[in-house]
Amino acid sequence: MKLSINQLKYFKSLHERKHRQNYHNFIVEGVKLAQETLAAQPHSIESVVALPDWLQSNQHLLPEGTVVVPVAEGELKKISLLSTPNQVFLVVKQPNHFFDEKTAINGLALYLDDIRDPGNLGTILRIADWFGVEWVFCSPNSVEVFNPKVVQASMGAFLRVKCVEMEFAQLLESCPNLPRYGTVLDGASVFEATPELPALIAIGNESKGLSAEIQAKLTHRISIPKGKGGGAESLNAAVATGIVCAFFTK
Amino acid sequence: MKLSINQLKYFKSLHERKHRQNYHNFIVEGVKLAQETLAAQPHSIESVVALPDWLQSNQHLLPEGTVVVPVAEGELKKISLLSTPNQVFLVVKQPNHFFDEKTAINGLALYLDDIRDPGNLGTILRIADWFGVEWVFCSPNSVEVFNPKVVQASMGAFLRVKCVEMEFAQLLESCPNLPRYGTVLDGASVFEATPELPALIAIGNESKGLSAEIQAKLTHRISIPKGKGGGAESLNAAVATGIVCAFFTK
Repeated sequence: MKLSINQLKYFKSLHERKHRQNYHNFIVEGVKLAQETLAAQPHSIESVVALPDWLQSNQHLLPEGTVVVPVAEGELKKISLLSTPNQVFLVVKQPNHFFDEKTAINGLALYLDDIRDPGNLGTILRIADWFGVEWVFCSPNSVEVFNPKVVQASMGAFLRVKCVEMEFAQLLESCPNLPRYGTVLDGASVFEATPELPALIAIGNESKGLSAEIQAKLTHRISIPKGKGGGAESLNAAVATGIVCAFFTK
Repeated sequence: MKLSINQLKYFKSLHERKHRQNYHNFIVEGVKLAQETLAAQPHSIESVVALPDWLQSNQHLLPEGTVVVPVAEGELKKISLLSTPNQVFLVVKQPNHFFDEKTAINGLALYLDDIRDPGNLGTILRIADWFGVEWVFCSPNSVEVFNPKVVQASMGAFLRVKCVEMEFAQLLESCPNLPRYGTVLDGASVFEATPELPALIAIGNESKGLSAEIQAKLTHRISIPKGKGGGAESLNAAVATGIVCAFFTK
């Protein structure tokens, strides 16, 4: 019930982006998220490292041909990224979502410009999942979607929402006629917008907002008006995304 | 430029809730937040621990009678809770906000039932600040509003939003006629609500939602409808708060 030195080395290497990119996979931890992933995408599972008890009660979820590694709790702790104890650690293949001019966008799509906080990206994917947003595009300098903190915060959204890294200009080549809304501080009130759907909504970096390059390519500049007596300088990027998605899909 | 053993012990003790409660103060860190706090509430400042360069360029902000402690960077690191280097560490007196039946509620007020994540509470305070919500009430089992992670995530909202710990039943004794909205999974769509203001909005715990006790005291049950094709089980508590506040104040 001990991991071999090579197993230990391999599973721990996946804590780092460069190794996830190299192996084209990522880590999913926690009982609930692991069960959801196993049930939804059995063919994407590469390895299941888990306590024997967990393996026994979840046998029906284990895909044929998957590497199953029963381990003791202490071993699991060595490879886990969670601070609280967990029972299962999955290695999952990264999906290959392909987007080009033949792909239809229904309803809303999001473009995230340089979102840096993993919690924010995970929360935005969860919002996309809630509001039925199928495509989320990330600028190449955004935090990696397979970062374990993003995966945890997304609460399984990565199973349904298609997240693709792409330059804004490149995206526009594939869908030049899509209306492009962007959140900026001096935009028109989102509460008064009559959204034309399908549409793309661009969300800016946590401190710098949308880059000038992207702003120049917007067709609509929108903002969330402050309330009477409001004092904050800005809203959190994920909260702003939630409010815009709610207004655009209601 | 070194801290004495007693200073070190005292400043570090404020990392813990029990000592913050005992001394009735809290920590504010980071250049931007410290400057904002000094400018907005000079009388609430107890101590300023900072690099000599920072002290020199911010002399005009230092309130008379405040303890000022110039320190070297290495010393500041010993008492700091931030992972990235910073230049200033403030000890600030906790405000005494008093709410009773004579206090008027204008517009919206929030009641947070057992919000546990410091990032969520800070983000909710920032939302309250943005939408001009003056009062935010927290159940006694919620995360402490003076937790350093809450203070950081609130982005200075603690300077404007009045946050008070109070049982829901006790709050209702002071404002028995206030409409009480609560977010629940099976409520009426918030998009179709015609809010009666002033009103109280109750937001539930991240995983359990609103307690049965509070649900029994609501006058309106509301929810944020899922979008077409939406798959997520729930929205993040802060995102849900943002969407409800946006709809109620637009």
